[in-house]
Amino acid sequence: MPGVPKPAAKRPRARAAGALPAPEATPRGADITRERLLQATHELLFEHGGEEPSISQICERADVRVAMVSYCFGSKAGLLEALGARAVSQMMSEEERLAELGLPPQETLALHVRAMVRNFVRFPYMGSLSERIAAGDPTATGMAQTVARPTIAFYEQLLADGVERGAFRPGIDPTLLLFSIVGMCEFLFSARSWVQDAGETLDDALVERFADHTVDLLLEGIGRGG
Amino acid sequence: MPGVPKPAAKRPRARAAGALPAPEATPRGADITRERLLQATHELLFEHGGEEPSISQICERADVRVAMVSYCFGSKAGLLEALGARAVSQMMSEEERLAELGLPPQETLALHVRAMVRNFVRFPYMGSLSERIAAGDPTATGMAQTVARPTIAFYEQLLADGVERGAFRPGIDPTLLLFSIVGMCEFLFSARSWVQDAGETLDDALVERFADHTVDLLLEGIGRGG
Repeated sequence: MPGVPKPAAKRPRARAAGALPAPEATPRGADITRERLLQATHELLFEHGGEEPSISQICERADVRVAMVSYCFGSKAGLLEALGARAVSQMMSEEERLAELGLPPQETLALHVRAMVRNFVRFPYMGSLSERIAAGDPTATGMAQTVARPTIAFYEQLLADGVERGAFRPGIDPTLLLFSIVGMCEFLFSARSWVQDAGETLDDALVERFADHTVDLLLEGIGRGG
Repeated sequence: MPGVPKPAAKRPRARAAGALPAPEATPRGADITRERLLQATHELLFEHGGEEPSISQICERADVRVAMVSYCFGSKAGLLEALGARAVSQMMSEEERLAELGLPPQETLALHVRAMVRNFVRFPYMGSLSERIAAGDPTATGMAQTVARPTIAFYEQLLADGVERGAFRPGIDPTLLLFSIVGMCEFLFSARSWVQDAGETLDDALVERFADHTVDLLLEGIGRGG
């Protein structure tokens, strides 16, 4: 379309993609281009419900030349992997900080679940991106690898602590708990047709209600009861 | 490949696709071709982890001419929709029969969750198929429509019954419970990379452990405790 680009506020978006978590060091030179490509891909995946954007869409949004994708990431797959890694590293450092706080187990679990829901709000395309990365390369097990094992270890410690303090019932399998928690949290963001058919709209109010419901269900579900 | 086809038992499949639930009337004439196309699509989706087969793959497996897809279903999308409808109608009639039994609410919930897990074992491609159908036609909300509303009504009744009998705590939202239950049950079958990264294999033993775990978590989670 010719003419002046519309201001962002006028675009018909239900919710705008936020900024990606910052890289560890301030980007310079080629790293600035890298950051622009990552941010553009994040925005496009966010806006199109996880549908993979084309390289030209990404470069148009980032306002960089198409050749920069291979220069910075080797390929589009490399760009998607780098984006996944950025989001995952943010989640995992939140999880580590939470574990270090040494809060009562119920409170740790509640904060963890709320953080996971919040991360799916920020990165609603994570589930499909992770499966796509894994499917594209049968030797790479995708981003889940960096999340699954450390999170299972985190649950193992949390469950043991909770049982010892009389807060949680014994016998909960940390791996199955991981599947339950990720499955519940992801579903709200991946199963758009279900949300629509249930007569709901995925807005902040629904996310808040769902986070409360999930925390309650889990705390009661693994709690000692009584 | 030349030569005699290998017997089915020799094919390297972790688990074979079962037969589809039978149609209401015994198929005759063109309906026999319809059934063969549905069964072939079911098998291919099952074997390839939900990846959409091509029309020629489907027709080769069904041993029918390629033109029969449009003759019987209008298009490949119509074939996929008919397959989804067959699976959904099976699930919904199970749900109706369960509601009619009038069992204690905890037992009804446990049987319902086990039936849902079993249905994802039989139709592991249902989640991706449902999203694909919904994405392909923005006016069609997909199979979730036939599942979401009746299942929410089923939960509403079950929760009210459970609260009245002192079995469940009050205040559980049936719509959010639907998202939790479908999210938990679907995840095990859709998130292959997570299962792999957690060091697990999706076999009968894992399905059984997961069903037990999910039933426990839910019964405790919505139970009155104590």
